[in-house]
Amino acid sequence: MSKLTASLEEAIIASGLKDGMCISFHHHLRNGDYVLNKVMDAIAKLGIGTLTINASSIFDSHAPLLTHIKNGVVTGLETNYMGPLVGKAVSEGILQQPVLFRTHGGRPSDIETGKSPIDVAFIAAPTADNQGNCTGQFGKSACGSLGYAFPDAMYAKQVVVITDNLVEYPLADYSISEVYVDQVVVVDAIGDPQGIVSGTTRMTRDPIALRIADLTATVISASGLLKAGFSFQTGAGGAPLAVGQRVQELMLQKGIKGSFALGGTTGYLVNMLDAGCFESILDVQCFDLKAVESLRRNPRHVEISASHYASPLAKSCVADNLDVVVLGATQIDVNFNVNVHTDSNGHIIGGSGGHSDVAAGAKLALVIAPLNRARLSIVVDQVLTTSTPGSTVDALVTQYGVAVNPRREDLQRTLGASGLPLVAIEKLRAMAEEINGVPQKPTPKDRVVGNVMYRDGTIIDEILQI
Amino acid sequence: MSKLTASLEEAIIASGLKDGMCISFHHHLRNGDYVLNKVMDAIAKLGIGTLTINASSIFDSHAPLLTHIKNGVVTGLETNYMGPLVGKAVSEGILQQPVLFRTHGGRPSDIETGKSPIDVAFIAAPTADNQGNCTGQFGKSACGSLGYAFPDAMYAKQVVVITDNLVEYPLADYSISEVYVDQVVVVDAIGDPQGIVSGTTRMTRDPIALRIADLTATVISASGLLKAGFSFQTGAGGAPLAVGQRVQELMLQKGIKGSFALGGTTGYLVNMLDAGCFESILDVQCFDLKAVESLRRNPRHVEISASHYASPLAKSCVADNLDVVVLGATQIDVNFNVNVHTDSNGHIIGGSGGHSDVAAGAKLALVIAPLNRARLSIVVDQVLTTSTPGSTVDALVTQYGVAVNPRREDLQRTLGASGLPLVAIEKLRAMAEEINGVPQKPTPKDRVVGNVMYRDGTIIDEILQI
Repeated sequence: MSKLTASLEEAIIASGLKDGMCISFHHHLRNGDYVLNKVMDAIAKLGIGTLTINASSIFDSHAPLLTHIKNGVVTGLETNYMGPLVGKAVSEGILQQPVLFRTHGGRPSDIETGKSPIDVAFIAAPTADNQGNCTGQFGKSACGSLGYAFPDAMYAKQVVVITDNLVEYPLADYSISEVYVDQVVVVDAIGDPQGIVSGTTRMTRDPIALRIADLTATVISASGLLKAGFSFQTGAGGAPLAVGQRVQELMLQKGIKGSFALGGTTGYLVNMLDAGCFESILDVQCFDLKAVESLRRNPRHVEISASHYASPLAKSCVADNLDVVVLGATQIDVNFNVNVHTDSNGHIIGGSGGHSDVAAGAKLALVIAPLNRARLSIVVDQVLTTSTPGSTVDALVTQYGVAVNPRREDLQRTLGASGLPLVAIEKLRAMAEEINGVPQKPTPKDRVVGNVMYRDGTIIDEILQI
Repeated sequence: MSKLTASLEEAIIASGLKDGMCISFHHHLRNGDYVLNKVMDAIAKLGIGTLTINASSIFDSHAPLLTHIKNGVVTGLETNYMGPLVGKAVSEGILQQPVLFRTHGGRPSDIETGKSPIDVAFIAAPTADNQGNCTGQFGKSACGSLGYAFPDAMYAKQVVVITDNLVEYPLADYSISEVYVDQVVVVDAIGDPQGIVSGTTRMTRDPIALRIADLTATVISASGLLKAGFSFQTGAGGAPLAVGQRVQELMLQKGIKGSFALGGTTGYLVNMLDAGCFESILDVQCFDLKAVESLRRNPRHVEISASHYASPLAKSCVADNLDVVVLGATQIDVNFNVNVHTDSNGHIIGGSGGHSDVAAGAKLALVIAPLNRARLSIVVDQVLTTSTPGSTVDALVTQYGVAVNPRREDLQRTLGASGLPLVAIEKLRAMAEEINGVPQKPTPKDRVVGNVMYRDGTIIDEILQI
């Protein structure tokens, strides 16, 4: 009755994997993940090729993938985010077909509707039993939430769970149920704990980031949304974390009891929960050990699936019920379109993740960024890649002031009345050009190496070879 | 953004319900459920008819359904269990088409594969938020697990959540997610707490039941399965509860640490968990308040879906991993076929529920029953209705001894060596006939009023009109 299979090779053979099929991976082990590489090595050894990989994200730790691409084991890539190491190679044309970029909400909806069928899902599970009940909360490779792996488990034709912590059946505190799982493989290690989650996420001391955080917190406060029932998402970078800390201070000062925080979760968000700022954290992904520990211990910190997080085809999702989100950008243009896919040289260095999902869903979507990074302007005339349409972005906060999207006249008035330093986005672009000079645009080739699919399934931009 | 609809009538209209469609209900509110009747009254008022109801169970509290059947509002019934009040009327031919009986495992698999499509699911939810995240664990009508409602929520075209305890969004400790829910309706009361769960389930003092329980516990002990890792399911009736108590005593005496108990959960099973007999309870349904409270408080007492409980099409289910189950019978015949659908007059008084699922799944499926009830033999030549095939039943335990199914020669030897009073089932039938006389068989009409579908989708028996 056990589904235990002795090795990855045997599991791959038993799964019926053939040339040309689509396999999937989730990214909760982040830059510490061993599973994608181990599985791909085993597949290569078996001589199976022309595969498409649908991975919720690709990190630098997955650089060995490049060999499998060169050797024709992998000919297609679909992902929501791609780190710079694999990204640069893809930008330079290593892949036969363009990589297809989805969003964290679009991926589960495409999997559920069958637009993006998966033949074999490989699920890295920090703890599992011999029938495949599994969770990310326990074990030496604990990563917390397994939210992004839910659609893979529920809809893939074959599901292989890979764990380094096999426990007695039944794992009662399961996250993904045995009803979806075909095979279980035990390996020595599914990941490097150092890379899976950082020990703690660290607050910035950079004065520009702190200035931006102060302004952003003031914008949130002035917007009128920071009141009882407030809900909030912010990122794991220095400035977004500092925004969270400022917002926490404001909430505690004013005695504001918020509703929920939406994660990607850091220890700082956990602090806000523990301090009584929020009733709950809904968590699709943990960024640090404190978040993992909180998910394990606190019944008000709960795991949600990728669909529950942000699927546009779900009957509702949390992203669509969010008050305020704080987002980053590698570029933002005068129409408030945001690029999080490519750097100013046009190289792939990221992807939407949930960026465009929460921008579309939240009542107030704030993009925060310094005006320049490494002597390059962040505010430009036109983004090299549109990741998130400007129609879903409400304001840009920089160290030189706040640019409100003209479609949000109401917000412009409200923030102006609060004495915030408002500035037209064109003015910010001019300032940036004054400092850095007019940015040189890269001269890409004609060949398309990436397509950016918006959460509704439309291709909103393409990425050209460099 | 809220899915709140002002009334049941408006929700029904908005769901697009039309003549001839199929609607569904779950039975966690048991004999206290108000929701089925309220919804059916609203549907009748709207003039919609020729509907099929797919309810996980029908209780006596649903007797008003008979009026809707007479009036043509309901023309088809599919269920896993039917209490005697509605059962008698169906047996007497009130319904135009035969009622279709499934098992608790067969129902979710038929819903998931699309064999049994549901147009509108009505989900009674003891606590819900305005987007439909809901749970049975909290609220004045708390019923604990909502396990049987999962397939309805996940696969019905339209899902209406009905609650009497609306809480702020998001209900973090949700059981069914908003991603599946179209509408939420608030009513004064979804059920009568007295009928939803009994205050406590009560132990029997009947000497015959206690004698059967003693014998059954000895059979379990002698079977060799009562050892470290033991898993167990037993019912909520007097004798099954007494079996649980005896097994608990044995486990504590011998220091046996079991693995899991499978519920239908009573306070007695909770006692066993709390006493350290089991690592966990996997719970598809709570029978009393102590079970509800344990599910709420104890992370080792967890809710599972109907599929996870017993679906034959799931990639695995808990029923198939079970060591020992203790089951009841209204009749059992010399081929060990069990009837739990009809009484000795041929009237419908029950249904499989999970009976045939766990009988098929467990390593040791014990049917326990007194030899006679109300001067009628339980052991007969041929059951009036085959609910559970004899090929999946391992032994019958009566107050006069234990009859082992001849296909289990190994068990016969093991139990014989332990000095248990073994007896051929034909002998038990003869004894019963000696006491009660040869049972008079009812003389049913030719018309079929019910079909019994086994968990694999085959019709294994039909029930005739009385």
